[in-house]
Amino acid sequence: MNKEQISAYFKSLQQDICQLLEKTDGSGRFVEDVWDRPEGGGGLTRIMKGGSIIEKGGVNFSAVHGELSPVITKALSLDPSLFFATGISIVMHPHNPMVPIIHMNVRYFEISDPLTGEKKNSWFGGGIDLTPHYIDEIDARFFHNCLKNTCDRFDKAYYPEFKNWADDYFFIPHRKETRGIGGIFFDRLSESELYTLEQRFDFAKAVGETFVPVYTELMTKNSSIPFTDEHKKWQHLRRGRYVEFNLVHDKGTKFGFDTNGRTESILMSMPPMASWEYDFKPIPNSMEAKTLELLRKGINWV
Amino acid sequence: MNKEQISAYFKSLQQDICQLLEKTDGSGRFVEDVWDRPEGGGGLTRIMKGGSIIEKGGVNFSAVHGELSPVITKALSLDPSLFFATGISIVMHPHNPMVPIIHMNVRYFEISDPLTGEKKNSWFGGGIDLTPHYIDEIDARFFHNCLKNTCDRFDKAYYPEFKNWADDYFFIPHRKETRGIGGIFFDRLSESELYTLEQRFDFAKAVGETFVPVYTELMTKNSSIPFTDEHKKWQHLRRGRYVEFNLVHDKGTKFGFDTNGRTESILMSMPPMASWEYDFKPIPNSMEAKTLELLRKGINWV
Repeated sequence: MNKEQISAYFKSLQQDICQLLEKTDGSGRFVEDVWDRPEGGGGLTRIMKGGSIIEKGGVNFSAVHGELSPVITKALSLDPSLFFATGISIVMHPHNPMVPIIHMNVRYFEISDPLTGEKKNSWFGGGIDLTPHYIDEIDARFFHNCLKNTCDRFDKAYYPEFKNWADDYFFIPHRKETRGIGGIFFDRLSESELYTLEQRFDFAKAVGETFVPVYTELMTKNSSIPFTDEHKKWQHLRRGRYVEFNLVHDKGTKFGFDTNGRTESILMSMPPMASWEYDFKPIPNSMEAKTLELLRKGINWV
Repeated sequence: MNKEQISAYFKSLQQDICQLLEKTDGSGRFVEDVWDRPEGGGGLTRIMKGGSIIEKGGVNFSAVHGELSPVITKALSLDPSLFFATGISIVMHPHNPMVPIIHMNVRYFEISDPLTGEKKNSWFGGGIDLTPHYIDEIDARFFHNCLKNTCDRFDKAYYPEFKNWADDYFFIPHRKETRGIGGIFFDRLSESELYTLEQRFDFAKAVGETFVPVYTELMTKNSSIPFTDEHKKWQHLRRGRYVEFNLVHDKGTKFGFDTNGRTESILMSMPPMASWEYDFKPIPNSMEAKTLELLRKGINWV
């Protein structure tokens, strides 16, 4: 198993996911945008716009390489190194406020010695998290149980650890609320005493393959629920929070900008339409207020 | 002249500005939100929503004090200090895409010794800048000439220096474009060999008082120009860029979040509705394309 094989797997996963999302959506089709990274490597961004269920969504594949910038080597406490990074990243924004926003990412990172080319370290990272505009507790339990099942096939310790990691990561400090109901988040899964790198890859694959059955179920189940202008208004406000998290806190976005990444691919996560209202407060006991109460860390959904 | 007098001036300037904006808007009224800062001081945020011309706008006054956090003292290379900060900050988002977004800020900052209370340093900062959705070159020249006239009453060197500062500051690196057509930006105007602090204050006042005549002229001149859904769509995309600048780059937003500032007042600058579209490219030679070509540094508008 080498980096070319890992990268080829991610690319074929992107293909499979897009095909199955198109099938579930019905009318939406992904358009392809192939791009090169001047400093090395490139990617394939696939975008759906104006589908039956998906208003705007992106599935990005990339495989890039080059020298790690001083900013990054310093942040990671590394000597000057070459890097190779490959992965896929997905964000879906549905029309219907009753369908949640979803985000999934699996990635592989490898660093090597600039003189010998020898691999110095490598690891997998990723996760899946859900941002419902309206939290349906049955859906939330279904979502977390699916993630737990995937994790448990590898290690019973994974789900609790990676669920907490997601709670901590997908938190908006200036709003004192989580972005959504979390999910799992993991990073730096390298070869260890317990696991080979191949086993780490198998886990990353399993996470990537959990995306389609989980999200297509939520799309199908919720996309025909009727909604009002008030629900749409709330959806736009929640998307505003999504923007705040991604632009102020998300490490992927920051890493992308810091490494002179491709702006359109980094910001494919942005919603089609978002709004802000000064000091908006939902009506007590409304569906909106109940959702806000559940946007906090440490809820056990399984 | 002491900090209480400076603060009282800013508060009365807020009052005057709101009154004159209401008069020009016709139907919109500012609502008031008084707030306290738990660590010391507070403010008055005044918000207009759904006016005839202004879709969403805020005029924030604050006067806060306390201990400078270690993050800030380190960034400014200071010993532990007490600070006092007061100022007003304005952002207006109009309905009509032919009316520009405007931002104005004037502020006073003072630091003092935590043991003796003695003032160690103090300065004024601020500026005005304009973000037209569609750049009208006549309006752009009018805007910059008004700023130049204000600057020239104090020092012929001010306008060229502060205009360049605004070009550099209001730049979105990941888009390689400026936020709008700039304006003036200045900071750290303290007592010097040339100027007393009182003279610096007079300049800050003059900048604050330039806001109303300039913006009400642009409101009145442009708010009855007809516009289409395509113009609105472009406005929403440009507002998306405004969000990107404010959340990723703006030092005021970052300072606010880093010092545990009041989120609603910091983010009152957010637009009522913004959108993102993957890799949007305007039609060649369209009004949108012409605007994009003018979103760069170093244009001499006077």
